[in-house]
Amino acid sequence: MYDLIVKKKMGKSLTEEEITYIVNGFTKGEIPDYQMSAFLMAVCLKGMDKSETIALTMAMAHSGDMLDLSEIEGIKVDKHSTGGVGDKTSLVLSPMVASLGIPVAKMSGRGLGHTGGTIDKLESFPGFSTSIPTKQFIENVNRMKMAIVGQTANLAPADKKIYALRDVTATVDNISLIASSIMSKKIASGADVIVLDVKTGSGAFMKTLEDSISLAEAMVEIGNGIGRETYAVITDMNQPLGRAVGNSIEVAEAIQTLNGQGPEDLLEVSLTLGSYMLLGAKKTGSVEEARKLLLQTITDRSALNKLGEFVRAQGGDDSAVYNSDLFPKASIQEEVTAGKDGYVTKIVTDEIGMTSLVLGGGRETKDSIIDLSVGIYIHKKLGDKVIAGESLATLYGNNAEKVKAAKERCLKAYTIEESKSEPTKYIYGIVTKDGLIRF
Amino acid sequence: MYDLIVKKKMGKSLTEEEITYIVNGFTKGEIPDYQMSAFLMAVCLKGMDKSETIALTMAMAHSGDMLDLSEIEGIKVDKHSTGGVGDKTSLVLSPMVASLGIPVAKMSGRGLGHTGGTIDKLESFPGFSTSIPTKQFIENVNRMKMAIVGQTANLAPADKKIYALRDVTATVDNISLIASSIMSKKIASGADVIVLDVKTGSGAFMKTLEDSISLAEAMVEIGNGIGRETYAVITDMNQPLGRAVGNSIEVAEAIQTLNGQGPEDLLEVSLTLGSYMLLGAKKTGSVEEARKLLLQTITDRSALNKLGEFVRAQGGDDSAVYNSDLFPKASIQEEVTAGKDGYVTKIVTDEIGMTSLVLGGGRETKDSIIDLSVGIYIHKKLGDKVIAGESLATLYGNNAEKVKAAKERCLKAYTIEESKSEPTKYIYGIVTKDGLIRF
Repeated sequence: MYDLIVKKKMGKSLTEEEITYIVNGFTKGEIPDYQMSAFLMAVCLKGMDKSETIALTMAMAHSGDMLDLSEIEGIKVDKHSTGGVGDKTSLVLSPMVASLGIPVAKMSGRGLGHTGGTIDKLESFPGFSTSIPTKQFIENVNRMKMAIVGQTANLAPADKKIYALRDVTATVDNISLIASSIMSKKIASGADVIVLDVKTGSGAFMKTLEDSISLAEAMVEIGNGIGRETYAVITDMNQPLGRAVGNSIEVAEAIQTLNGQGPEDLLEVSLTLGSYMLLGAKKTGSVEEARKLLLQTITDRSALNKLGEFVRAQGGDDSAVYNSDLFPKASIQEEVTAGKDGYVTKIVTDEIGMTSLVLGGGRETKDSIIDLSVGIYIHKKLGDKVIAGESLATLYGNNAEKVKAAKERCLKAYTIEESKSEPTKYIYGIVTKDGLIRF
Repeated sequence: MYDLIVKKKMGKSLTEEEITYIVNGFTKGEIPDYQMSAFLMAVCLKGMDKSETIALTMAMAHSGDMLDLSEIEGIKVDKHSTGGVGDKTSLVLSPMVASLGIPVAKMSGRGLGHTGGTIDKLESFPGFSTSIPTKQFIENVNRMKMAIVGQTANLAPADKKIYALRDVTATVDNISLIASSIMSKKIASGADVIVLDVKTGSGAFMKTLEDSISLAEAMVEIGNGIGRETYAVITDMNQPLGRAVGNSIEVAEAIQTLNGQGPEDLLEVSLTLGSYMLLGAKKTGSVEEARKLLLQTITDRSALNKLGEFVRAQGGDDSAVYNSDLFPKASIQEEVTAGKDGYVTKIVTDEIGMTSLVLGGGRETKDSIIDLSVGIYIHKKLGDKVIAGESLATLYGNNAEKVKAAKERCLKAYTIEESKSEPTKYIYGIVTKDGLIRF
């Protein structure tokens, strides 16, 4: 290990064998933390090339269970988001894509910090199980094309251990390390085609467009480099996606979208990601055709029905799919009002995510318990005109003190100025194996 | 600590308070190894400026006992070598300087790896104690101007702990870290004037002249920066200093030198270092005058008598000072002979140090036990003409197998070529507070 630290410190490339040795040695506890952190710092300051990044990804993917989805018929497509606020696209596009006959066999995460998780949101349906056995998972996908489960404990354990060390040694912010961390889990999850939603902006892990593009390119390079067709769509996270932030409240908005009444940004992002899923699954060769097919699943209610079918198949009560009022309600409703007239020019989006966390809807640590009924409904988004006293957002909570703290936090996240700022895009571009296309 | 790692990773300078926090936190065990090693790697790749290096040195010096030499009359002068092979200058110049009335209150180290240590060598005198109480140490210096003891366990413990971590995380080779490590111990040892012998070449820690100059400059900057007059002499270590390598055998050569019959290189290096000790002690204002004074101590035998007095004062039998034949003899004597005619063009000097270690004269680990009687006597040095079959060096050992292994090692260290190479210098230059003067 000493010699490998020296090699990376000198900016040299490590071989596949050397990287595998490091990952396995560290995971088994044979390489101590202090050597690994010195190595990771050298990686942060000297970088890794494409073949090193692929080797790292594969070594981490193979450190635990490799999901075998070969019993599922057809091309398996997975979608993964780098994490955002109000991001309920999985709940919108999974039933759309599945209702078109494309298998969606998805492993999703729980929320942590300012970002939410699909698995938490799905638990809004009473009785819904996010940990069905692999056999049933595969059967469900074969029968009805859709299943979503939580990540198994033994998915890329090397990544988990390395990430925990990076988190305390200031070695998180290296593109190769970030990209390999995400991709190792996706690759272990077994999908044939991977569509990545790389969020960019104040609510995203990557705050700048430039960094988001680099991450997207690195992940697409890894995916295609090891033979998994991979696309990355770069989408905006300078404000929450849609208007709902929380858990049940986000599911309700997803349902609204499947009813054809969703917010424009959420629909647009879902359609774009969904289109590339269809392309990857060879359902169609054109994005335009894919969008038409996806929109059709809303019009003919097949996507909504697919969501209901999916909820039932995993033991959940699907009544709320057809009547969102059935979701449990928070006891307190509080308006966050504008202090002055003007236009919303900035929303510190991760602070909106933290507002939801403060209300009880998010996780401070992995062991936090989530209140599914709390959340935020955003009335004013970027570019909106506001009048002093008008509501910017409605908070839903169950604890007066938490609501008070959340209100302060939410208000601080907003900037209201006299003149309107440039409108933001929903989507900035797409990275395929042929490179970046800016939108 | 996380924020300080980030700061250094971004190449920013840390404040004195921040560096003290890191050193104290790590020494107390509050900052874990894995954070410290990430920080050290960032230091290696981003560097430290002068004020950071001074802050690090002082924090490490103050992490343990700070020797108070104020009870010693006069200007206390210390000499320190960065470590070499056959380096017995302390044994030569300490009695020379002390016999001129300048207090030599010295803490020395033991050998490790390919380099020897003064403390080990002094134990060649039966009964000699290297751990006399501080009170007696000070009394001896006041009475007879000379005392040499081993480093106390609590001298710069922070440096010890940091060095141990650097050693296993490939974070040794940074000038600021190396310079502060050496200087923290020198500063804690309490001398007013510090004369450094920075070795350069194949047997030195610094293999290139450029690196040796950088280290010399960094240490002189630290020393003078905190008000300790500091000089660094850059001396050659592309071949062993003198001809003897081992323990008793080196003491014998030092005695020979004090008798006026020592090898030229050893005498020259001792005179140069000694001159700056005299300058620092304000004994004289000129190097020329200092050399004359030092040479006089050989001619009038006052240095040799001082060595005897010093050995007796620390409980040792000084008979061998006047008759080196009294040192214990190794049982096996083996010649390393040249395989062909030519000139010695290269001696891989750390390999000669390792030859001594293999014979039993050095330490592989801190707990190794040394055989003081074994060693090497070098017959052929750089530029010498050799004839096939002629002896390059004589090995002295007590174990046939070790001697065999040592012989192979020693032979491999020599390069014999047809044409003579450029002669090497004994001394390359001197760094004072005014900068480098090349010789």
